[in-house]
Amino acid sequence: MSGLNVSPEIERLISLLAKLPGLGPRSARRAALDLLKKPDALMRPLSLALGEAAERISTCRICGNVDSRNPCHICTAPGRDKSIICVVQDVADLWAMERASAFKGQYHILGGTLSALDGIRPEDLNIAALIERASDPDLKEVILAMNATVDGQTTAHYITDHLSGTGVSVSRLAHGVPVGGELDYLDDGTISTAMKSRRPF
Amino acid sequence: MSGLNVSPEIERLISLLAKLPGLGPRSARRAALDLLKKPDALMRPLSLALGEAAERISTCRICGNVDSRNPCHICTAPGRDKSIICVVQDVADLWAMERASAFKGQYHILGGTLSALDGIRPEDLNIAALIERASDPDLKEVILAMNATVDGQTTAHYITDHLSGTGVSVSRLAHGVPVGGELDYLDDGTISTAMKSRRPF
Repeated sequence: MSGLNVSPEIERLISLLAKLPGLGPRSARRAALDLLKKPDALMRPLSLALGEAAERISTCRICGNVDSRNPCHICTAPGRDKSIICVVQDVADLWAMERASAFKGQYHILGGTLSALDGIRPEDLNIAALIERASDPDLKEVILAMNATVDGQTTAHYITDHLSGTGVSVSRLAHGVPVGGELDYLDDGTISTAMKSRRPF
Repeated sequence: MSGLNVSPEIERLISLLAKLPGLGPRSARRAALDLLKKPDALMRPLSLALGEAAERISTCRICGNVDSRNPCHICTAPGRDKSIICVVQDVADLWAMERASAFKGQYHILGGTLSALDGIRPEDLNIAALIERASDPDLKEVILAMNATVDGQTTAHYITDHLSGTGVSVSRLAHGVPVGGELDYLDDGTISTAMKSRRPF
């Protein structure tokens, strides 16, 4: 922030805000000013919320979700199906699933995907715990809900290989035309997959 | 955040982050997750920085700047010219001026512009204090550095009217082609202003 003639408290606030994803130096300055204009309505509450979250939130030792309880409230919810695990890359994907309300089982968060390019190996991900969970005789199905990218699918294949022989059935999300999507804007891979996987009407 | 099955601490954090300018609901979720992944590197430091700023930063009673000192470090700097005041709309504009290092006098922050549409009247802005400062016999010049918008220029005219008779000379920033700007991308108003205000080469 050289050249910005401000007090060290403001400089520090701006440089920390600029580390948030989605905020660059300019938007961090805007956010800092907005916060400074609303000390009681926004700055103090946000400070408290961050402090509380840092204090209380931990990573669930079963599934890898972030929650104030450990095991998390999804792992311990009595109404959720314990016989089915949906494997996702990241907590953001768990949130996306929960928003869609399309799944009432358990989750398992890998914390990323295998990637030769970024040097991410199976032991860097939360895979061993998943294979251990698969040895539970009550578990019937594992749904692989990784992103439909090369790394996501590589990871899915790796997990499928390591779950074979456990007696658990492994499935993946369907590929096809997004609901509300227009064919003209879709890539060829999606269209040909949707064509191959066509269903009776 | 309905449908997002998270603990209240995370929900509260997301809803506060979403109030920052430049962050919508999706980017607030991303920022919250990023913070939760870096409790010690980012979440606690940001909480502390916000708390400290809320505690220590106030609005300068002379110029309206935000600073940990009051009067602010610009108003009290011994090396800065006390005979000239640059009037800006907002603290962000003061920061922009300081980044450019083009001015070594005092500032006065209006806190906005007059706006019939938004119902912002002269008494809603920091104008009375400016006129009082103009009665200082040491003051020689007031530079009006409002944005080159209709509201900015209306405000500039209003202030000019109220400073007439104080003996202070009033100036405004030059209009013209931005340095590095291409004529083809400029609006007609800027080009014709630059043409009228042309300078000998």
